[in-house]
Amino acid sequence: MILEIPESEIKSRQQTFFETLQKKECDAAVLFSVTDIFYLTGFHFRPSERPIALIIDPKGIFSLLVPRMEREHAHRYAVIEETHEYPEYPGKTHPMKYMANILEDRNFKNLRVGVDAEGYASAKGYTGPHLTTICSFKETKSLKGVVEQQRYIKSHNEIELIRESARWGNLAHTLLVKYTVPGEREIEAESRSTNEATRAMFDTLGAGYRPYGSPAHAFYRGQIGEHSAFPHSQNQNAMFKTGYNVVSQAASDVWGYKSELERTMFIGEVSKTQENFFRHMHEAQEIAFRTIRPGLPACRIEEEVQKYFRENKLLDYAKHHSGHSMGLLNHEAPFFDLGDQTILEPGMVFSIEPGLYVEGIGAFRHSDTIVVTDKGMEMITYYPRDLESLII
Amino acid sequence: MILEIPESEIKSRQQTFFETLQKKECDAAVLFSVTDIFYLTGFHFRPSERPIALIIDPKGIFSLLVPRMEREHAHRYAVIEETHEYPEYPGKTHPMKYMANILEDRNFKNLRVGVDAEGYASAKGYTGPHLTTICSFKETKSLKGVVEQQRYIKSHNEIELIRESARWGNLAHTLLVKYTVPGEREIEAESRSTNEATRAMFDTLGAGYRPYGSPAHAFYRGQIGEHSAFPHSQNQNAMFKTGYNVVSQAASDVWGYKSELERTMFIGEVSKTQENFFRHMHEAQEIAFRTIRPGLPACRIEEEVQKYFRENKLLDYAKHHSGHSMGLLNHEAPFFDLGDQTILEPGMVFSIEPGLYVEGIGAFRHSDTIVVTDKGMEMITYYPRDLESLII
Repeated sequence: MILEIPESEIKSRQQTFFETLQKKECDAAVLFSVTDIFYLTGFHFRPSERPIALIIDPKGIFSLLVPRMEREHAHRYAVIEETHEYPEYPGKTHPMKYMANILEDRNFKNLRVGVDAEGYASAKGYTGPHLTTICSFKETKSLKGVVEQQRYIKSHNEIELIRESARWGNLAHTLLVKYTVPGEREIEAESRSTNEATRAMFDTLGAGYRPYGSPAHAFYRGQIGEHSAFPHSQNQNAMFKTGYNVVSQAASDVWGYKSELERTMFIGEVSKTQENFFRHMHEAQEIAFRTIRPGLPACRIEEEVQKYFRENKLLDYAKHHSGHSMGLLNHEAPFFDLGDQTILEPGMVFSIEPGLYVEGIGAFRHSDTIVVTDKGMEMITYYPRDLESLII
Repeated sequence: MILEIPESEIKSRQQTFFETLQKKECDAAVLFSVTDIFYLTGFHFRPSERPIALIIDPKGIFSLLVPRMEREHAHRYAVIEETHEYPEYPGKTHPMKYMANILEDRNFKNLRVGVDAEGYASAKGYTGPHLTTICSFKETKSLKGVVEQQRYIKSHNEIELIRESARWGNLAHTLLVKYTVPGEREIEAESRSTNEATRAMFDTLGAGYRPYGSPAHAFYRGQIGEHSAFPHSQNQNAMFKTGYNVVSQAASDVWGYKSELERTMFIGEVSKTQENFFRHMHEAQEIAFRTIRPGLPACRIEEEVQKYFRENKLLDYAKHHSGHSMGLLNHEAPFFDLGDQTILEPGMVFSIEPGLYVEGIGAFRHSDTIVVTDKGMEMITYYPRDLESLII
């Protein structure tokens, strides 16, 4: 059992990124993406008005710029060789002034510098100058999406963390089902299952477990009865009633890694109409499972799913693509989408979740997490998918 | 009791924004900020790979560009005159192509257009061109921060929603204290208090309550015993022990509006050292309360707090500024910070939370939510702040 990415792997990520820099003819880099910085340093930062940045110098030395309040936190957890700090944002001196001094000391003005954004960005009250207005570089190159692409293919350890996430999502889901009883309300089932699964997770995994996100949880998010036809719904304090279809969602974060488990279920009984939509959704998911293999473009999965829906006159009920990648974020590129030409490779992790949304009846969507293998794919989530198991 | 911003107020926000546009010599505008779009339309969008945009034409007509899957949701909740949709992202045709067509139809190429960003931005797998590379305008002007500034001063209704948020945060906090018992673990106290307060909130407020965020909740986030010295900590599954100081956090979202309540508390007993730091923190907060009044620059509050800390040789223990604004986000500008010259005005809502962080002992920080009034300020949170009430 592993509960975190070991320091050696973080260092090897840095090495890979540094090699990419050289291929892109950059001598050095400055990154602002909070997720990418976590990926490359193991430093989990709660984004706020206070900027953070990762600086990579021409020798491949990684250092962080953090606010004073994160100094001890960065010293304890970040896999880096140096920490620079500024007192506070906005502060008497803007944090980007500190940045300018650091880069000047390191002679960045004579370097070809890769940047992932024009500067730090946050909706939470931060404003600041573009990096290139406070520093001059020999040349500035965009690295937008470069670390994101490095994150496409998950390592053995990353997949293990995603498996661990799925395991506790499965427990939370099992408990959610147990507490989904006609006459009860969604919040009750959600709270009890989330609480019990979270406790079990902490008690089982012990002090080594750091969620960097939410521990085990299970929700309906308002997807109960006909209101489930809104795909991105939220808690409605709805009451469970016999005959409703409900759509669940369960997962957990393990050192920031996520999985996705969603099930369409029926309370007590299922009507012919519900069963019909369920079977089509189930078959569409099966088609996706059967199609996935390395070497195909991601769009092929969506094409096959849409073909099935079209043949069965269901395309009007489908409102979104059939899946997305995930890892440190719950949605990542690439996507099982008509417009995504990314070639599938072993180690990519996706949700598979073709959905049907029927006004007046509700939603029909399972979501499973899978990993692309050498020959096809392997399921990471394992909660039963068949109708019989899902009449609760 | 109000539980949402009425449609008339949303329309008046649009009117104000449209007048600002004219002052800024813009004929029209395109906005991508999810928070600002919610503020101006009442449409609560869960950000993902799929872009959203708000278009304001020269006649002041507000329309939204949304993905297909949000069509019904936008029709039901958004206060706008028109909805444009694109099938999906990435899609066969990039959503920004749809945007280009819409703007071309409306003759934006002959207009002076204000934009809040170069395009939609999301870490969740979205990539897309800058708006100005797909459309040409007569002139492009930056509106970055303009809606944010409109949000600085809260209306009567906004303050009522923040008060409602504080009310249920207070309940969650009261329950958190009840369940904070030596030998129990933080997750247990957090889950029980959050669950009970959330249920009470839904049952009390009824179907009109839409959180657009998290219902009532209370946490320690790992700020238990000496680990509380990390200001942005997270759940450690720590056990409560007699003599620990703990720092809580409680709130709720009401139609997206937030409040902030945090307390430094002592389990069973308080040492002389703990009491000493507590009293200084308490006094620093009192100084902030006494200083706040309209017409002062925001930095003045931080200056007074720092003066007190300096006189008492405590400045090394202070790691962050004394407060931030809040509303639809938990941190917003302006800040009680040395570098913030914003003039305080009635209707601004702030947290007041000077903190002391002592290695080996823990954190000392209360946070209260206040609103600036004509003559000074008024407390919105009301949980007891004195030492005696906080030995639990």
